[in-house]
Amino acid sequence: MSDQPHDAHVDRADPRVGDLSEGRILRAILSRLGTSGAEVGPGDDAAVLRAPDGRVVATVDTLVHGPDFRLAWSTGFDLGFKAAAVNLADIAAMGARPTCLLVALAMPDETRLSFVEALADGLRAGCDSLAPGCAVEGGDLTVSDTLTIAVTALGSLDGRAPVLRSGARVGDVVAVAGELGLAGRGLALLFDRFRNAAGQPTGVTIELLADAERRDLAAQLRPEPPIALGAVAARTGATAMMDVSDGLVLDATRMAEASVVTLALDAQTDEALGGGEDHALLATFPADVTLPTGFRQIGRVVPQGAHPVLVDGEPHTGRAGWDPYRDWDSTRG
Amino acid sequence: MSDQPHDAHVDRADPRVGDLSEGRILRAILSRLGTSGAEVGPGDDAAVLRAPDGRVVATVDTLVHGPDFRLAWSTGFDLGFKAAAVNLADIAAMGARPTCLLVALAMPDETRLSFVEALADGLRAGCDSLAPGCAVEGGDLTVSDTLTIAVTALGSLDGRAPVLRSGARVGDVVAVAGELGLAGRGLALLFDRFRNAAGQPTGVTIELLADAERRDLAAQLRPEPPIALGAVAARTGATAMMDVSDGLVLDATRMAEASVVTLALDAQTDEALGGGEDHALLATFPADVTLPTGFRQIGRVVPQGAHPVLVDGEPHTGRAGWDPYRDWDSTRG
Repeated sequence: MSDQPHDAHVDRADPRVGDLSEGRILRAILSRLGTSGAEVGPGDDAAVLRAPDGRVVATVDTLVHGPDFRLAWSTGFDLGFKAAAVNLADIAAMGARPTCLLVALAMPDETRLSFVEALADGLRAGCDSLAPGCAVEGGDLTVSDTLTIAVTALGSLDGRAPVLRSGARVGDVVAVAGELGLAGRGLALLFDRFRNAAGQPTGVTIELLADAERRDLAAQLRPEPPIALGAVAARTGATAMMDVSDGLVLDATRMAEASVVTLALDAQTDEALGGGEDHALLATFPADVTLPTGFRQIGRVVPQGAHPVLVDGEPHTGRAGWDPYRDWDSTRG
Repeated sequence: MSDQPHDAHVDRADPRVGDLSEGRILRAILSRLGTSGAEVGPGDDAAVLRAPDGRVVATVDTLVHGPDFRLAWSTGFDLGFKAAAVNLADIAAMGARPTCLLVALAMPDETRLSFVEALADGLRAGCDSLAPGCAVEGGDLTVSDTLTIAVTALGSLDGRAPVLRSGARVGDVVAVAGELGLAGRGLALLFDRFRNAAGQPTGVTIELLADAERRDLAAQLRPEPPIALGAVAARTGATAMMDVSDGLVLDATRMAEASVVTLALDAQTDEALGGGEDHALLATFPADVTLPTGFRQIGRVVPQGAHPVLVDGEPHTGRAGWDPYRDWDSTRG
């Protein structure tokens, strides 16, 4: 992002960000974000957001090229959408309504402007479809060797108490909203079917996929967590709630330990138990509450036993959470 | 950050983060951050912070290894302190009081735990010394090829209106709090004196430096912007304010353009006019206001002329802002 365009090398139709001023890139992004709903939106040293009940819910999550995504598999739009979705899910998991995002984007000079524009479109589409009223209200642009998208999400509890991981009580119903296992299957599909002989990621030819496979891939690349159901669950009396990001068994274990109980889950497929990146909402409700539409019962809270989680009455012996990226660092396509 | 330590390769005294679980690294960080002042602090899906006047000020800024710092020159403590300071300055520049930080840390597997601990210590020390009452209340850990520290800062206006860049009025006094030019000189010192014959950064031997040089280096590596003066300026009636991060002339130009005026500055050294990363506060005050202690007058607001900024009556012809990192990418020490 120099202030001195290297005109000789510029592709005028789709320049590299390294050939553009920061102001030019910012204008391209801001023009795609829609109207600010903030008291002070992008453009000053900081944004000023409303926090109507005198509190603000805040979380940050980062997507890093290599460990978290590959450009051969994800479009800019996908990445913007996913970066929004995974952060909105953390706000929803507190029982809150997302109000705004701040986006810190660090990218190589070689990044094309069209990619940045698609990423901005994806951020906006993610907010508009998953959390209407939430928008990008600030951010930061930096140069980096590694494409990195760090998103901060803020939200409002609208006067309610936050729904913590630690509130599950013996006798509560365990319920989940959103899909389990699809995003993990989508990731396995990418690793199995869209790498070349050298193991490098290749473009995704969606025409080769069956409908169920396309759904799995979409859950991985452009997840649509049930954001609005977070506040609904809180209003309905959820006693505990969290985002299922690292696999149902692993996250249920965290909730069980924080609540000092055991979660006795019904039988599930291995994919549902161990898949990552679902961004479903795991919640517990008092037994006499009618579950809100979108939640389904998957178990019961029982007194703390030797195991924090039981599946169909037994401790889980299979894989709990799965991360194929972590030990796969030979290629960065 | 695997869940399976590779015991054979672990330096038990100072392990690599790649040999530790995420939980282990988090515990090391959290134990260094002091007591949470939040309604919900670190450990759940999101933090819940107080926003006493029903609004929250929010900003994000990123430090990336390569373009923004070099590990040969900065310690983990320096980086934590600086990452806090530059974000606190953006909150202060709105006239607000910083209330909390969220820290997204993306780091190579090779990063030593001692470095992460020093970084956490630096974040805490930066908050404690520059913005007492502000603390790290959340964050995110990720693996990356490139060490990246993205910090979100939140703040409270405590019932005041935000002080924007656009509020400077003809007749106002232009004033600054904090040092100008030191951080830029410190950076020049690093580039001039602490690189080897191949141009690669080498360790800083502070014993070789004169007192003034040590002060310049400290301003670059561990800046101490006048954070508390942001709220003081707002209470005193500042009409416009901003953080001077890209050099006085460049940032004064931004304020002049946002306010549709010209800023007529007194004569300054070239280093003060063009140095970057000062994180001083540039503000305008009504002429009849006694400047708060810590601010000094450096000019006057005059009607918009052909040039947004005048220095000693003339347009500035020298360097406006300087970034030697940007075009220096051959080494990453």
